[in-house]
Amino acid sequence: MSEVVLAPGDTLGILGGGQLGRMLAMAAARLGLGVRIYDPDPAAPAAQLASGHICAPWDDAEALERFARTVQVVTYEFENVPVAAVERLAALRPVRPGLRSLATGQDRLAEKTLFAELGLAVAPFAAVDGPDDLEAALGRIGVPAILKTRRMGYDGKGQARIAAPDGAAAAWAAVGRAPSILEGVVDFTAEVSVIAARGLEGAVVCYDPGENLHETGILRRTVVPAGLTPRLRTEAVLAAGRILTALDHVGVMGVEMFVTPKGLIINEIAPRVHNSGHWTELGCAVDQFEQHVRAVAGWPLGPATRHADVEMENLIGADVDRLPEILRDPTARLHLYGKAETRPGRKMGHVTRLRRG
Amino acid sequence: MSEVVLAPGDTLGILGGGQLGRMLAMAAARLGLGVRIYDPDPAAPAAQLASGHICAPWDDAEALERFARTVQVVTYEFENVPVAAVERLAALRPVRPGLRSLATGQDRLAEKTLFAELGLAVAPFAAVDGPDDLEAALGRIGVPAILKTRRMGYDGKGQARIAAPDGAAAAWAAVGRAPSILEGVVDFTAEVSVIAARGLEGAVVCYDPGENLHETGILRRTVVPAGLTPRLRTEAVLAAGRILTALDHVGVMGVEMFVTPKGLIINEIAPRVHNSGHWTELGCAVDQFEQHVRAVAGWPLGPATRHADVEMENLIGADVDRLPEILRDPTARLHLYGKAETRPGRKMGHVTRLRRG
Repeated sequence: MSEVVLAPGDTLGILGGGQLGRMLAMAAARLGLGVRIYDPDPAAPAAQLASGHICAPWDDAEALERFARTVQVVTYEFENVPVAAVERLAALRPVRPGLRSLATGQDRLAEKTLFAELGLAVAPFAAVDGPDDLEAALGRIGVPAILKTRRMGYDGKGQARIAAPDGAAAAWAAVGRAPSILEGVVDFTAEVSVIAARGLEGAVVCYDPGENLHETGILRRTVVPAGLTPRLRTEAVLAAGRILTALDHVGVMGVEMFVTPKGLIINEIAPRVHNSGHWTELGCAVDQFEQHVRAVAGWPLGPATRHADVEMENLIGADVDRLPEILRDPTARLHLYGKAETRPGRKMGHVTRLRRG
Repeated sequence: MSEVVLAPGDTLGILGGGQLGRMLAMAAARLGLGVRIYDPDPAAPAAQLASGHICAPWDDAEALERFARTVQVVTYEFENVPVAAVERLAALRPVRPGLRSLATGQDRLAEKTLFAELGLAVAPFAAVDGPDDLEAALGRIGVPAILKTRRMGYDGKGQARIAAPDGAAAAWAAVGRAPSILEGVVDFTAEVSVIAARGLEGAVVCYDPGENLHETGILRRTVVPAGLTPRLRTEAVLAAGRILTALDHVGVMGVEMFVTPKGLIINEIAPRVHNSGHWTELGCAVDQFEQHVRAVAGWPLGPATRHADVEMENLIGADVDRLPEILRDPTARLHLYGKAETRPGRKMGHVTRLRRG
């Protein structure tokens, strides 16, 4: 089953119907593939661009089976799809990327452990399952440190910074007393990410690293190319290639890294297309969405060559009120996600701009 | 009604659901707009990417009214939409481009007459409504000449070449004795087209002219930039601007021209997005599809700046059998139209490639 290769006219199943699923759906359409979305949300933005939407909970075995029967390959657009649902599907259809990528991407402890096993530089970390673990970990790692839930953290959620040893109890409460990981704070000069793809036969391509700028824990901008030395750029790409290969990953992955005076520190992975790769829409002939579809379809990967310098800006919440100004801006390429409701912190769209060198 | 401006969440109605409608639907989605397709074909490729498809004949007044009620603005993706249908819709909703562009684009005589009225160079032409007209026209224009039906001609259909005066009867039979136009054959060195857009407030932008290469009457390749002198390039763009302005056109238009030793000859217009503008997907931040949507939405036009040299190749009929090779080609960006059935002469997709300067 792992050898299934899609043909035009076949249907790709996508778990999750957010904006990433929506952009995947358009890329799949451009490659002549049909798309079916599985998402419990009746207003899933991707459903508008898909030929089918199964709207059911993640634990609905009958709906999952019905979904599997109408698609030839399954992929996912977010890493918090319940593993049990993917296990059910994997018994019926190839799921790409596989369960190992998904499980690792869901668990900060598993991903940090993988990086360490591969000999990649990581921040000091320790598993925290209770107040005693936290005390011990703080003793070893010191302050400042960040306590993060192992699961379901994204865009800065499920995190608490510990500035002094007496902050442990408050942090433990702030993360909801959930299984967590304590990480030493990294003194970094920049955050970069590598968008990498791996094909069914093991080939890996990497897009140029971009530099990410966050505000209140949410990605605000990605600038490409990142200001890396050739040596660090190579290091970043090689680290990404090793991670995808170690996981036998099939598809696109975002690998986030910190740049420090001592070199790169691998921070985390997202086993899917990634917000920091939206610049590829404008800067590359084959963008991350098409690349992911090619990979999970079992097709040869496309080139990851970058033909322009690009800056990507997220439109978050009320940023969409700037629409008239953005439409008048001759440097801006707009991409909206079709979300009816604007909420603070909600990603509503993005703008890409060519940077003049 | 002509002042209606769309807002994200509004719905654009598209008459015709072929590949051009499909690409318009994706562009509209990227701008946060919904799309509803009207097409009598239940397998219309655009329907897969739209949130609604009204599948009814062009003379179904009730269906047209139902369509109009669910959209805020109507546009079209092919110029052979019956004028009567558009007149019905125009009474209910803004139709952009308007009836004048549509009627002119449907009638070779009307378009040639417009070009001549604007003082633009055209091939010698004459209306032919019967054998006597044809004899008289041949006497004036001479041979070789081409007899073309005034209406419903595209991709070389409805045309007959007359090499000698005694070929008149056969040509008249070949075009089905339909109202026609006789055109003198132009001795040209190249065919170029200008993809131009005009906004609701009268601004015009033009993409760089591309050079078109045909095989058996069907566009095979477009190469951008065309090999024009700066003077001819300017002449081409100015001619396009004058035509769009004269028609009070709102939206994108393709203007085809011949390059001759004596200058440009305006050949024909398509009052819609155009096959020879597909290169803009890869070569411009805002492609022709997004540009058209911006124009008909009443939004400011985007830049038509070209940031790369591009070659576009149509995939026609059995060309899709080359898919494995195309997918392995690191220079090729593939775009398929989701058509289930391959037929000779049918446009199945296209490939764009960055050209290295």
